[in-house]
Amino acid sequence: MRPYDIILKKRNGGKLNKEEINYMVMGYVNGEIPDYQMAALLMAIYFKHMDKEERAILTEVMANSGDKIDLSPIKGIKVDKHSTGGVGDKTTLVVAPIVASLGIPVAKMSGRALGHTGGTIDKLESIPGFKTTLSLNEFFENVNRFGIAIVGQTANLAPADKKIYALRDATATVDEISLIASSIMSKKLAGGADAFVLDVKVGSGAFMKTFDEARELAEAMVGIAKSHNKKAVAVLTDMDEPLGKYVGNSLEVLEAINTLKGLGDSRFTELCLTLSSWMCYLAGKGNLEECKSMVKNSLESGKALEKFRDLVRAQGGNPEVVDNPDKILPISKNIIYFKANIDGYISKIDTEKVGIACNYLGAGRAKKEDNIDHSVGMKILKKLGDSVSKGEPILELYVNNSSNIETSLKLLNEAYHISSERPVLSNIIIDVVE
Amino acid sequence: MRPYDIILKKRNGGKLNKEEINYMVMGYVNGEIPDYQMAALLMAIYFKHMDKEERAILTEVMANSGDKIDLSPIKGIKVDKHSTGGVGDKTTLVVAPIVASLGIPVAKMSGRALGHTGGTIDKLESIPGFKTTLSLNEFFENVNRFGIAIVGQTANLAPADKKIYALRDATATVDEISLIASSIMSKKLAGGADAFVLDVKVGSGAFMKTFDEARELAEAMVGIAKSHNKKAVAVLTDMDEPLGKYVGNSLEVLEAINTLKGLGDSRFTELCLTLSSWMCYLAGKGNLEECKSMVKNSLESGKALEKFRDLVRAQGGNPEVVDNPDKILPISKNIIYFKANIDGYISKIDTEKVGIACNYLGAGRAKKEDNIDHSVGMKILKKLGDSVSKGEPILELYVNNSSNIETSLKLLNEAYHISSERPVLSNIIIDVVE
Repeated sequence: MRPYDIILKKRNGGKLNKEEINYMVMGYVNGEIPDYQMAALLMAIYFKHMDKEERAILTEVMANSGDKIDLSPIKGIKVDKHSTGGVGDKTTLVVAPIVASLGIPVAKMSGRALGHTGGTIDKLESIPGFKTTLSLNEFFENVNRFGIAIVGQTANLAPADKKIYALRDATATVDEISLIASSIMSKKLAGGADAFVLDVKVGSGAFMKTFDEARELAEAMVGIAKSHNKKAVAVLTDMDEPLGKYVGNSLEVLEAINTLKGLGDSRFTELCLTLSSWMCYLAGKGNLEECKSMVKNSLESGKALEKFRDLVRAQGGNPEVVDNPDKILPISKNIIYFKANIDGYISKIDTEKVGIACNYLGAGRAKKEDNIDHSVGMKILKKLGDSVSKGEPILELYVNNSSNIETSLKLLNEAYHISSERPVLSNIIIDVVE
Repeated sequence: MRPYDIILKKRNGGKLNKEEINYMVMGYVNGEIPDYQMAALLMAIYFKHMDKEERAILTEVMANSGDKIDLSPIKGIKVDKHSTGGVGDKTTLVVAPIVASLGIPVAKMSGRALGHTGGTIDKLESIPGFKTTLSLNEFFENVNRFGIAIVGQTANLAPADKKIYALRDATATVDEISLIASSIMSKKLAGGADAFVLDVKVGSGAFMKTFDEARELAEAMVGIAKSHNKKAVAVLTDMDEPLGKYVGNSLEVLEAINTLKGLGDSRFTELCLTLSSWMCYLAGKGNLEECKSMVKNSLESGKALEKFRDLVRAQGGNPEVVDNPDKILPISKNIIYFKANIDGYISKIDTEKVGIACNYLGAGRAKKEDNIDHSVGMKILKKLGDSVSKGEPILELYVNNSSNIETSLKLLNEAYHISSERPVLSNIIIDVVE
């Protein structure tokens, strides 16, 4: 077998078999196949794509390239949730306690902030004392004892994906559906869950800007999961504006707690209930209607909030955060405003820019090594479709010494469009792919 | 400027400007841009192509990347001929003396055997004593004194093309028209001639297998030449069977001499006269009709043959080769036959395989370092369309100890198709692109 022939085959629109995909991926990982041949193959895949079987194989090969988590010490059906990334996405902090409160084991490995999107692990670290690193034994023990544990990813999951992703990032071959879907699902498969609810974001703050792209990605990911005999549901959700009312680490934990108390933004609450219901359904707790009502009850009864308290306590955090989040969480006291420059309706938001603006305040990272300021962020006073008068505040910015306020305000100015016509708003739940 | 953005632009079908092409090519040559980014760009070009302007720029940048031959010490309009490569293509050995005999300076740098095609330099070295390496001064002096010199390429012409070609060869990005045309023309431009006659081969023994591809390449090359204010004509010629009656080094020199004596194969003679006429025309010797008759006269009068003798003598070869080629040239005495296995007409020839079969006899190289056996090759007894009886010889094979006869015969068996229907033959001259 020669790399040349495999590149040529894909370039000519051919279908690669398991032997060929394995040979290229593992040869590349082992340094036997040079990066220029892998780069050429990736660009050929960009143009000629991979079909369902090829995607399943690529995912499997990458999933098998490193550690595979064995979740069998945890009893029950393990359902994982994955979000493709957005701005203000604190969904895990609400969904995980809800489903855990219903007896579904939550053994979650989460990521850190990346690009314009935040990360669950960084958010949780806003809580004083909260430990996001547990040994695998502690992790399993916590799940079995409290029904929930959320930790950073320490295992070497899908290193082939990591190496290939770095090459894609340098060769303009990131945005191809089969490569994106295989990349996400390889890490999910290696993570060992039995079923997956995939929250595929659509819109100006998402990686997929259009419905069609997002739907294609959702179908690709669900298809890969099913090829590996895993249950999966993808929910397409709106990311044309930041999710909920807060962006930033402490501020999003605050919002999650408020939401668990039933005081959350209605669209964000709807999203959390929907995703939780699907997780509950995949865990075999009942039909979808039954799951919806269980989930609603968990939230309304305060059981989910108590599960969140268990989580915080179990991982060494100060449980008082549940009762007095604004006192316990580090939140900057320095507030400035981003204001409307004309009268009208907020008609369009370049949400990716809002995410980057938040990073400039200190909430995210430009490089992996950068520190995060948990105390900064923004409170959203006016949402998409709201009317504003000239000079009226749209955002409350929580800033600090490290904040690059000017750049941030410049980006927000570019991000927010105000017009005389009220825009048509999308539902938060756009579509479901089963 | 970032390589990433340039790859992305081309991937999305954009048009690269001079700054961008120069940055990528020279950055790659200087080692500043890694090969995986160049590989990704090449694959993007494979799918999205380059337009006329981009091709002209790429050609120029590559031509300027190394030595450029200054032919100004040679008086007159310098017309170069280039063939895209075929099997049995000894055209230069006939065309060069014809046009030189008409007072057009022939300062020719030629190549060696490559892949399934032969090389003029290897063929000339069949003549005992013939030196294919001259200093630049000797080269110019010979052209000014005898009107003709043919040497191997020693200058470092278009090293960027060389480096990029090697990468294309490893990444399945060779067969794209703009890249092929720019590659050829960059070396031609660096070679310093004023005008070019491009012999674009079409068919089973050519790199371009179909008329459409060949026509596109011809137009691309003529377009590039014109963009650089050079005159150019491309002649599309048939390569569905080996050219003439001989393949191999000594044997092709023998055939060239016979042709210069007026005893050549009629189709091959027609090709030589046509290409010579166009060279004569581009050199400004008259209109095409006038040039045709001058060229014919040169051949018929024996002037071209005498010019060939001058060439051999001037470069240290034994001039008696002209009178007694079969005595002077090393030609093996060991002959075996490739015979027809059924009755019928020779209906189709996979000419590339015939070229490779000839290499297995020892006439070509598998690697650059391999030695060539000048004495081996084949005489073609039956051409395309000829009728044969079972057991009748099609080819006379001149073999030697080094010959891998079995492999050669196996390839010839695959290459020659005999059927009950007489095939429709193409003219040797298929089309002209001015």
